[in-house]
Order: sequence, then structure tokens, then C-alpha cells
Amino acid sequence: MPKTIVALSTPPGVAGLAVLRLSGESAFDIVDSIFTGKISISDAKSHTIHYGKIMSKGILIDTVTVSVFKSPNSYTGEDVAEISCHGGMVVAGEIIDACIENGAELAEAGEFTKRAFLNGKMDLSQVEAVADIIHSTSKKASQTAARQLIGNFKQRLDVILDSLKHIASLLELELDFAEEEIELLEKEEIKEKIREVANYCKELHSTHKAAEILRNGYYVGIAGYPNSGKSTLFNTLLQKHRAIVSSIPGTTRDYIEESLYINDVHIRLVDTAGIRKTDDVVEVEGVRLVDNVLQQSDMVLVINDITKGKFHSDSLASGIKEKYKDREVLVVHNKVDLVESSLAYGIDGISAKANIGIEKLKDIISSKATLSFSTENDILVNARQATLLKKAESYLHKAIDAIDKNMDNTIIAIEVRAAAQAFGELTGKNWSEEVLNQIFSKFCIGK
Amino acid sequence: MPKTIVALSTPPGVAGLAVLRLSGESAFDIVDSIFTGKISISDAKSHTIHYGKIMSKGILIDTVTVSVFKSPNSYTGEDVAEISCHGGMVVAGEIIDACIENGAELAEAGEFTKRAFLNGKMDLSQVEAVADIIHSTSKKASQTAARQLIGNFKQRLDVILDSLKHIASLLELELDFAEEEIELLEKEEIKEKIREVANYCKELHSTHKAAEILRNGYYVGIAGYPNSGKSTLFNTLLQKHRAIVSSIPGTTRDYIEESLYINDVHIRLVDTAGIRKTDDVVEVEGVRLVDNVLQQSDMVLVINDITKGKFHSDSLASGIKEKYKDREVLVVHNKVDLVESSLAYGIDGISAKANIGIEKLKDIISSKATLSFSTENDILVNARQATLLKKAESYLHKAIDAIDKNMDNTIIAIEVRAAAQAFGELTGKNWSEEVLNQIFSKFCIGK
Repeated sequence: MPKTIVALSTPPGVAGLAVLRLSGESAFDIVDSIFTGKISISDAKSHTIHYGKIMSKGILIDTVTVSVFKSPNSYTGEDVAEISCHGGMVVAGEIIDACIENGAELAEAGEFTKRAFLNGKMDLSQVEAVADIIHSTSKKASQTAARQLIGNFKQRLDVILDSLKHIASLLELELDFAEEEIELLEKEEIKEKIREVANYCKELHSTHKAAEILRNGYYVGIAGYPNSGKSTLFNTLLQKHRAIVSSIPGTTRDYIEESLYINDVHIRLVDTAGIRKTDDVVEVEGVRLVDNVLQQSDMVLVINDITKGKFHSDSLASGIKEKYKDREVLVVHNKVDLVESSLAYGIDGISAKANIGIEKLKDIISSKATLSFSTENDILVNARQATLLKKAESYLHKAIDAIDKNMDNTIIAIEVRAAAQAFGELTGKNWSEEVLNQIFSKFCIGK
Repeated sequence: MPKTIVALSTPPGVAGLAVLRLSGESAFDIVDSIFTGKISISDAKSHTIHYGKIMSKGILIDTVTVSVFKSPNSYTGEDVAEISCHGGMVVAGEIIDACIENGAELAEAGEFTKRAFLNGKMDLSQVEAVADIIHSTSKKASQTAARQLIGNFKQRLDVILDSLKHIASLLELELDFAEEEIELLEKEEIKEKIREVANYCKELHSTHKAAEILRNGYYVGIAGYPNSGKSTLFNTLLQKHRAIVSSIPGTTRDYIEESLYINDVHIRLVDTAGIRKTDDVVEVEGVRLVDNVLQQSDMVLVINDITKGKFHSDSLASGIKEKYKDREVLVVHNKVDLVESSLAYGIDGISAKANIGIEKLKDIISSKATLSFSTENDILVNARQATLLKKAESYLHKAIDAIDKNMDNTIIAIEVRAAAQAFGELTGKNWSEEVLNQIFSKFCIGK
């Protein structure tokens, strides 16, 4: 019998409201032991709200509303009570203490959602969508996760899983009748179905990188020769003067990073200008750059000081392009306000200092970022899912190989079943405590 | 017709839930324009909860629950809908945007509570209790504010207000019958009633300081000659090593302060050791101390280096006592581990470094703090209220004077009415836009 758990479900802090949640068989009894309203919570109907007082040991704590969700029609599938009290640093804590004194246990991180999963209220893809919504930093990521949450993806996976299981059992059935040499299914037909699923797997896991950009933002690194104006551009793009981190002695940061939103796209701008003592440095064309900044960048802006010539930074740009493949590398001509228009003519440059061409540069960045995740999806494929999808794809290719090589149906069926197993892990039809722990460790308490 | 307002009512941040609130005539219609559930919110019964999807411009934003509170049975007295969505930095903002696109306006700070006041759902003393609960830093403060919120104080004020008005009208009535020389009330009886109220006023406003301590914490300043161990004690009391603020160049802080809780009492510990350039310094017995730290301290610990003798810091302590009256000044003998026990004998000293006597010192601090607010009250008297109570008390004393001097009933009645006016301002029976603005400017948005 799982214990009744309690936790604050809203962020801590000074605000009008705080909501704490109880889930479990004793949720209503525990609330009744501290709550005084018109009726007792145990007698209340599901999906109703009750106003009253919270008293603990004879002391009034707060006036609250209690929302009642009866099993199975609740988030966790268990009896759930939500107490909405005044915000701030004290009240919610006192009520949680009172709940614990009356038999509740403090929830672990993600425990409400874990119970929802264990009680069949959502599958793992939906669980992961909840985490993605809560942690998302852009509308598009949040909206994709919301579609994943309502089960668009789950339904498709369930259909595929059924289809794979069906294929496997047909193959195994044919096996039973092997002696009679009844060919129940055309091999080509089976192959076609398997190939379809394999393609779907590939299509999905290839969106993993796009999903990561959506989830974490589009990384734009700023590189260039000394005094090309990297930091000035960084500050101009952020439209504020950031304190120079490297002026604080003892800091261990070797680069500075800021988030900004351009056309609703979350951009993470990284300046390598403030390089201090670090081993994480690469020399590209005589310029010291922070390796892991370039490694994680989706796009690198190479800032070229146009007063030193149009092609001054070309070898640096090609050096970066060569070393870090698949990155967008864009040469940005800076200081166009300082050169004769004849020189600047034909060059779409900027002046970070004089704020020339900055809006256009922003548009270029955001459109490159948008292209990177242009596929409309109902899922934000995460690392776990990508691994499983690749695994499934590889099993399915092995199955196709086996068909092509006219191998025994047993062999084909084994590969198809292995792929089905991977799909089962995606949704959590097959789950292990280890996988659950890994997923829920990323959750916050109260969810 | 007031507009329908919307705001986030929970703190911003990553958490399981966020709650946003709409209040006003169109609250349900606005929610219906973005919400899809089993039934429409306009058709829902009061105090019921509805699960569904929020869509904006055809895009799914989140799955939510909507709580329905129909006028007048809501926080504001208006129609109120609370949308409980997933937490994080994105979703709640998107839903608020969608509400605004459909006709809601972003609420101003305290606007929900202001509407509650204007619609007669609470008086000003209750409004102020809401702010106190949200901002309270200790259980006792929060609990006192909760009693104030449910109206214990309000009821008493209402009784007094009625009684003052009754007295005034009796006096005025007697005035009308003056020619007939009918003495409707014994003067002594009236005087006694007025004195009772005056005493109550005094009793209440004298708790203002205690309320401030409850509200903001008990200030403990640490003073002493150089190298007496002030900073070491500061760190030991906090049980952690705090970064020394003064080592960061450019800081303008002239003292360091930290909060700690001893026996549930909120203590604000202030160390004046890190004095840097500041004009706010007093010289007491050759020791440079920060004046405003001592000014605001409820208690001053004078740290005496016992290796320099038992009476070494006595003149410093008496200097502080003389300059800052009404403060608890406690000499604390430090470094007892460094002196022969014969010297330390009889002295209840500590060693901040060796962690000797620290628990006992903490108990002394917390018991002094507790004494400072030992009066059990149903209200945390704030500055506004204290001023009004003093005003009322002074009018009532004038009334008593007038009775003693056998002055005309008109004069007495005028003073009593003036006192009643002050009481009316306490609860907000008489209010001005200015007073309301002052009160609600301290609120956060969403309350």
C-alpha cells in the first residue's frame, strides 16, 4: 500500500497563492484532521472546492480552499487533495508539517507523476512531456511537449507496437505450420511493413537534435581575431551592458553566456572573448577559442574587422568550418561605419558599436535557428528515446536482411520482437526501476 | 464596469503547477474562448473543477484544470476562474497572453484584493493581514496575521466603532434636549466607556514594535573592539562560512546581515566588522560602529575578548547602552578556551572558534526575542494602524478632559466622533484613494 504523499507543487516564493498536493488513500482523512469547513473533505464530491480554515494543534494557520479529486479521476489516479493557501515563505511549510504530523510523507521528486504512470494515467512518453513542459524555455518546445502530453505520439507508438507484435506472431504461427509449408504471408508484404516502421524510427530519431535545440535553445558562438568587436556585438545583441565576468578575480568561468529571444526563438549567445586560464582551448588560425563552446554551438559567428579587409577572417572561418563540421559558420563584417562606403559597398556588414545592421543579423540568426527545428512534430525526442528508436531501427533492418537472405522465420521473428521490446520501453509498457529512476530524478518535488 | 483582470498568482519558476486567476464579469467567457472541456465554464456550477485543454489560435498550449467561483462567493466577490496549468517559464505566460487577446487585462499589484475590499469581502485590517501572511518570515507572525485575516480584530473594532458612535449620538441627543436639562447619561459612565476605549487603543499601538519584530525579525547587532572575535561568532552562529563581502571590490555595503531561525524565531544577525568607507559611523569608546545597525538593533551583543580581562569591554557596553536606550545590551565573553579556567571561572563565556557556549547564547537571544513580542494578539499592528490608534487615543483623552472641565457636550461629541473617524479608517469604513494606493502598492501582482 503506497503511503499518502504531500509536497508543495508551486514554486517557493512571495506570491498570492501556493498550492500543495496530497495523494494517496489517506489524503482526505489527513486534510480533514487539519481542515474545518462546511463539510468534511471525505464527504465531498469529486472535482469540488471547499473553503475553510487550517488549524494545527489548536492554532489557526490560514484560510484556504481545498480541491477534491477522487480516485481514479485525479492526476495520480489516487485520491488527491490540493490545498490552495496564501503564498510566502511560511504558511505552505506549516501546512505541510501539519500534514506530515497527521500521517503524510513528504513526496520524492517526481513521485506524483510516477504514481500517475504506475496507475496507468500516462505512459512514459507523456511523463517525459510533463518534464519538458515544465522545463521548456520556448513556446514551440512547450507546445510540442503539450501535444506529446495529450498522447498524439503515444497513440502512434501503440499502433506500431501492435503491428510489430502482429507481424511477429504471424511469423511464429507460420513457423508452427512450417511442416505443412503453408506460406501464410507474402514475404514482400511483411518486408514492406517492417521497412515502413524502420523509416518511421529513423524519421523520429533524426529529429533528436532539433528537439534538443528546442529544449535548450539555439547555441550561437561568437569567434574572431582580437579586437574584431566580439564583446561589443555580444552586448549589442543583448541590448544591455553586461558586467564583464572576467574582471571578478577568482572566477573560474572561461566564457560568458546569455539567453535572448529573437522572434520567440530561444538563442543562447556565447562569447569566448573572456578566455582566462583554461585547458579547454583550441588554436584555430592563431586565435584561442574555447573548444566546448564551439563543440556545442549550432552556429558560429566569425566577426571580421572590415577595416582590416574583406577577406581578413576567411581563413579563420574555414578553419572552424573544417574542425567543427555541420555547424553554420557565418562571417559577419563589423565596423562598417569606419570604412569608406566604397569598401563597404556590396558587403552586408554591421557596426556593433553604431548599431548598424543588427536587426538584420538577428533575423538571420533566428531564421537559421527556426530551420534547424522546422519539422513539425508531436514529440520532443530526447536522448533516451533516440537511443531506443535507433535500436528498434537496427533490429528492423536486421529483420529485413534476414528476409532478403531467406533465413528462417524464427530469426526474423526474433528481430521483430526485439524491435517491439524497444518500442515497449519507449512508452513504458516494458519498464525497469532503473529507467524510472533515471526519468524521475530529473523532476522537481511536487510534480 | 470594472474590466476582467488576469494575473499569475503563484511565484514564477520551475515547479509542478502554476495558477493564474481571472476576475470580473467576463472571466468565464474569456476562459471559454480558450478552454475545451466536457462542459463550458459559463455553464459550470460554482466551486467545481473542470479538466480540459487550453488552445490559442488553433495551437494546443496545455492541459489544465479550471476552478469556478461564482459571484459573490469568490475571493474578489466577482466571478473568478482559476486556471491551474503546468509550471515553468512558458505555459502560464502563454495562457495569460491568450486571456488578454480575448479581452482580459493584466491585473495591477494587489488588484484582486482591492476588488475584494471594494466589494465588501474584507475590511482594511484583513487586507493588511493578507499582505502580512504573504510576507511573513516567522510562524508566529503568520499565525497572528491569519487570526487578523479571519476577522477577530475587525469584529472588535466594529464593536468599538459602534460604541463610540453611540456615545457621540447620546451626547448630541442630550444636546438637543439641553433646554429641558435632561441628563440622559451619567457623565462618569460616559467617561468610563471612553477611557476603556482609550486604554484599548494604547494597549494596541504599544504592540506595534513587537509586531514589527514579528514581521521583520529580531535584530541582533554584533559589536566589540577589533579582534574580539565578532566575525567568528557571526559565522559560528550561522554555522557556515559566509563569504566575506568586503573582499569583493566595489561593494558599497557597510555591514553584513544574515537571517537565522532559533527556536522558530526569526533573528537577523548584523555584523559591523566589515566597515568600509561610510559616513554612517559612530565612535563609541574608540570603536567605529555603524550607526544605523545599532539604531535598528533590538539587541546588541558586545563581544569581549576575555584574554584582555573581564571588564575590558564594559565601558564600550555602557557607552552603547547610553547612546541607544531601550536596547538589550549583552556583554559576551569570548575566547574562554584561551584563558586559565581560574580566570574564566564564574564567567558564562563562549568560544566562537571552539564552539563553546554557543547553544546557550542562542537560547538567550531567542528568549529575549520571544519576550519582545510575548503579548498574544490577533493583530500585527503596522505603522498606519499605530498612527490611527494613537490619533484615536489622543481624541479620546481630549474628550475625557472636556468632560472633566465640564465643557459643553458638543465639544465632547466632536472629539468622540474624531476618534470614531480614526477607527473607521482602520477598517476602511472611511477610506481614501490615497490610503488604498499606499496599502496596495505593497502587494504583488496576482494577489
